[in-house]
Amino acid sequence: MTEREQMGLWAFFRPTTIHTAGWRFPGANPRANFDLAELTRAAIKLEGACFDALFMADHLALLNMPMDGLKRSHTATSFEPLTLLSALSSLTRRIGLVATGSTTYDEPFHIARRFASLDHLSAGRAGWNIVTTANPEVARNFGFDDLRGHDERYDLAREFVHVVTGLWDSWQDDAFVCDAEEGVFFDPRKMHVLDHHGRFFDVKGPLNIARPPQGWPVLVQAGASPAGMRLAAESADVVFTAQTTLEGAQSFYRDIRLQAAAAGRADTPCKVMLGTLVVVGRTEEEAREKRSMMDSLVHTDSALASLSVALGHDISIFDPDEPLPDLPRTNQGVSSQKRVLDIARREGLTTIRDIARRVGGYFWHEVVGTPQQVAEQLEYWFGAQACDGFIVMFPYLPQGLDDFVDHVVPILQARGIFRKSYEGSTLRDHLGLNRPANRYF
Amino acid sequence: MTEREQMGLWAFFRPTTIHTAGWRFPGANPRANFDLAELTRAAIKLEGACFDALFMADHLALLNMPMDGLKRSHTATSFEPLTLLSALSSLTRRIGLVATGSTTYDEPFHIARRFASLDHLSAGRAGWNIVTTANPEVARNFGFDDLRGHDERYDLAREFVHVVTGLWDSWQDDAFVCDAEEGVFFDPRKMHVLDHHGRFFDVKGPLNIARPPQGWPVLVQAGASPAGMRLAAESADVVFTAQTTLEGAQSFYRDIRLQAAAAGRADTPCKVMLGTLVVVGRTEEEAREKRSMMDSLVHTDSALASLSVALGHDISIFDPDEPLPDLPRTNQGVSSQKRVLDIARREGLTTIRDIARRVGGYFWHEVVGTPQQVAEQLEYWFGAQACDGFIVMFPYLPQGLDDFVDHVVPILQARGIFRKSYEGSTLRDHLGLNRPANRYF
Repeated sequence: MTEREQMGLWAFFRPTTIHTAGWRFPGANPRANFDLAELTRAAIKLEGACFDALFMADHLALLNMPMDGLKRSHTATSFEPLTLLSALSSLTRRIGLVATGSTTYDEPFHIARRFASLDHLSAGRAGWNIVTTANPEVARNFGFDDLRGHDERYDLAREFVHVVTGLWDSWQDDAFVCDAEEGVFFDPRKMHVLDHHGRFFDVKGPLNIARPPQGWPVLVQAGASPAGMRLAAESADVVFTAQTTLEGAQSFYRDIRLQAAAAGRADTPCKVMLGTLVVVGRTEEEAREKRSMMDSLVHTDSALASLSVALGHDISIFDPDEPLPDLPRTNQGVSSQKRVLDIARREGLTTIRDIARRVGGYFWHEVVGTPQQVAEQLEYWFGAQACDGFIVMFPYLPQGLDDFVDHVVPILQARGIFRKSYEGSTLRDHLGLNRPANRYF
Repeated sequence: MTEREQMGLWAFFRPTTIHTAGWRFPGANPRANFDLAELTRAAIKLEGACFDALFMADHLALLNMPMDGLKRSHTATSFEPLTLLSALSSLTRRIGLVATGSTTYDEPFHIARRFASLDHLSAGRAGWNIVTTANPEVARNFGFDDLRGHDERYDLAREFVHVVTGLWDSWQDDAFVCDAEEGVFFDPRKMHVLDHHGRFFDVKGPLNIARPPQGWPVLVQAGASPAGMRLAAESADVVFTAQTTLEGAQSFYRDIRLQAAAAGRADTPCKVMLGTLVVVGRTEEEAREKRSMMDSLVHTDSALASLSVALGHDISIFDPDEPLPDLPRTNQGVSSQKRVLDIARREGLTTIRDIARRVGGYFWHEVVGTPQQVAEQLEYWFGAQACDGFIVMFPYLPQGLDDFVDHVVPILQARGIFRKSYEGSTLRDHLGLNRPANRYF
């Protein structure tokens, strides 16, 4: 009997509760997003369930929304991803650690060095989620009045990734001979000076840290615009996608593989991970009640503010009981705006208030039901080539996470589509990815 | 009986072996600087001895020296400080964690956020060593041809520190009410928007992480030039100084206190920590032999290269057997150049080779002798108001560290000038420093 293809499972770890009102759920720890003990417990539990990785999204500012909504957001305080994942690297042994790093508001040398350091500290479990940063509030924290143009951000990101991976290749694996007798610490023939001069960056190198255990930490990308997909198809090991329909997910899955093939990666297309909110109940009815209660806990101000963020435009200037007017194309997250408008069109929602009520809590892919139903749905989407696995979003901590780990994961394992134990030790091992060759040696 | 004044003891943790040839010492772990197990063992051992803090210097490049010297330097690969200290925060409970962050090649928002995050992860044990970065190789890793001018670097650093501390004060301590019932996560009246517009930086804020447990992580500064001392006197909690004579140290100690008083800090002048290499032997003779052997292990190419770095000028273009010519004032580390020239003058060294032989291994303060002699020397300098404590540099790991911890620390404890157990839990507690008031609340 041949082994069944295995799905991937990652945990969405920042914010721990993606649903706007998840922190308010009865019994939830409202501080879960910034509670080190809770996060540690969660990481160890997820490792016990053999998850591939913890995935930390990030913002370099508060959300750009009016205060009436902002003050209700549990994302306002949280740990910086690389420091938190470094701390958790000491308390875990196998689970991958994926942090977000911005190509627009950080430096290639810093990003290359910090992710290399995390990869060494964790013995090969680091991943870099490459983002171009679409929140205009971030620009104002870094000396700019406004965002760069969308396409320019992606041009810069491509050069940034090229520099970072070049810096990771600064040293051959056996460069550091540490020959105390001869007094030679490294072999200069095994060091490469990048000496990059490009449109956006001039970076000499070499990096002052040995090549990462994984060669390159795993590259993750989430942009769904044409420029984002191009970057993913060319460079990423994993693409994180937010879809709302099976057809949309299947279409994305096909497209990204075609583009990867066109970029010369037919044999190693990037893996597609689908962001998925899971709400588990003992009965289907209980699960649906939980899900409804979550939306009912979203304050109107939160819902309207979240809609503004999703659309990339402040809609508080309009009457919420009037239809949503035509909005100009945003310079922020293009795909997020499109997704909201698609949902409104598909479900016949016209007024701002109705659209906000629908998308103000959460509006990506979700699975709601009994453990059996949830497992079946995940298997169905996986089998239908909608994705290679899921970035699981828990509705709240701790119980929402425990429900999934304790009741859904065992079913996936019994069906032979998710591992019962880690076979390798690095994140690349978990994903079945090869260690990239050093481009200079 | 009144309690005796306590000295501070910090551990120099990057590089773990400050002496150029320490990694070559017989029995030393030549990879100690990049060996996580060795570093973890050392951190736990130092915490057992109640050290105040681990101190990580940093470079954002390889050392700027010719390859003949560079290939002999064990600093070429090492962990990035904030990621390493975050990892060690999970494995320790009391010892302070001080990382270097550059004001010239990083962003105030990133620095404020990462150090705040480390302070939360470690429950109040973080410190920031503020450096302006004097290595011109770093500039070339960040898109610049050369360093900014020395004084401009310090003007920028002062504004940078002002922005970072302002960001740390973004939130009142009880801002995050997490009221699930009302759906209010934070109280907007307890949030401050910095909205800084200065000569070098425009930073809006607020920071997206709660105020650090210590209010502000401990501020450390090491510049010894007039501009560096001014920054330390105005802003730092702790100044790390490199001195070679008792009189020089006493003079620095007086000066920095006078300057702090002039800056309105007569009651809370910065503490002066003296960088000190300690070499311990069972007999004085054994200690001196160890010390001599360390210098004998410095390869001539290393010594000449280290001299170039210390002087801020490439001296490989001169005949090493000729006297050192007059050099123009460097734009790099001004105080380092002065220290070398002082030593050469004082000891009557004229040729480049002789000066290199003297300073190529290590040329700051050192104490060599039996445990009793070392303890007496430290007590003497401490009592003579040369410093408030020592940043102890171990000659090699593990034995050089163990010698100090196992044999010297107990003598200092028995004499009542170093703690036998931690009384508080934060780094500010260990240093006897108050939690700074929030400037906005």
